[in-house]
Amino acid sequence: VTGAVGPLNPTIPGYDFGSPSSAQSPISLEDLANLEQTLGWTGEDEQRLRKHIELFRSQAERMVDTWRAVIAAQPHLWQWFAGPDGKPDDTYKAAVKRRFVQWVVDVATRPHDQAWLNYQEEIGLRHTPEKKNKTDGRHTPAYVPLRYLLAFLPVVTNVQQFFDPAIADPEDRTALERSWTKAVHLHITLWSRPYTREGLF
Amino acid sequence: VTGAVGPLNPTIPGYDFGSPSSAQSPISLEDLANLEQTLGWTGEDEQRLRKHIELFRSQAERMVDTWRAVIAAQPHLWQWFAGPDGKPDDTYKAAVKRRFVQWVVDVATRPHDQAWLNYQEEIGLRHTPEKKNKTDGRHTPAYVPLRYLLAFLPVVTNVQQFFDPAIADPEDRTALERSWTKAVHLHITLWSRPYTREGLF
Repeated sequence: VTGAVGPLNPTIPGYDFGSPSSAQSPISLEDLANLEQTLGWTGEDEQRLRKHIELFRSQAERMVDTWRAVIAAQPHLWQWFAGPDGKPDDTYKAAVKRRFVQWVVDVATRPHDQAWLNYQEEIGLRHTPEKKNKTDGRHTPAYVPLRYLLAFLPVVTNVQQFFDPAIADPEDRTALERSWTKAVHLHITLWSRPYTREGLF
Repeated sequence: VTGAVGPLNPTIPGYDFGSPSSAQSPISLEDLANLEQTLGWTGEDEQRLRKHIELFRSQAERMVDTWRAVIAAQPHLWQWFAGPDGKPDDTYKAAVKRRFVQWVVDVATRPHDQAWLNYQEEIGLRHTPEKKNKTDGRHTPAYVPLRYLLAFLPVVTNVQQFFDPAIADPEDRTALERSWTKAVHLHITLWSRPYTREGLF
């Protein structure tokens, strides 16, 4: 299946978007609409991100490399990528990275439909003991603490550096950053569900 | 006790900052330092916020009123402020509002010490069944879903409107917004702890 955003499932191992292997989200489309309204997410945000699809495609790997460098500099962050020997598991890191880069493009392009909702549940689970390491058959720690998922948000939403010089007008850069920020918050909010005590999400 | 930021405990009912009534945080100061580093929080952010203490003091109520208007327009948000009759509990709202306004000033001024850490745990608990309603003796729903705490972040971090015209330079406004954003994310990250399944925070 192909579309304006390219193949539905690029050949990335473990990238189970739209696949029966993906978890099913317990969040309804009505719940999702309420979340979007809470964030202030509108069709304008969706269009603004999609309009810059080529920018995100061209910058996605650079963005991930930049964030990975932040992680690599902090032992309390990179330890979740470490193998049983306490050293970074490069196989794991490489496997996750391809999906991380694809995620950047997906944030900017995927409509918020049931397949997308299901895959956010899947990504959330892959940060918790239920599914971490399973996709790639690795032996890193069993989870990534929720605190670091949330505390990393200001890092991955400070993105204007990646829009320069492609977007010359500072107001346009700010507007795109705000749309990106809302989208990322929506994703991480959904990822937090499997971390949450029964009934409190 | 008084200091540069005014009385330690303003006379706001239920404002238990630095009081023995506050919960104790299970987060260590070392954990906190790791979280701050993750966010990219530095002494520069702290100084930038503190430099604008008078701006935050003068704008705090306006900020809270603006956010409250966003909440009031969305039934899935205001329902957590409703009494058993399904209507907004104005007594509860008024009591919480005074602490919410004080929180804005505190974000900009309080050092991140043990008393501050403890009170963030207390605020988190007050959004969950363990302590919601208890402070004010009201009967609103027993919790605020974590999803809305997180999805509201882009609303409370989009604050440049409150810095205009006091801060004329757009770059200074952006820098102050980024410092505010990091600080708010640190707070909400700490508030998410009581929501989190055992061992995953």
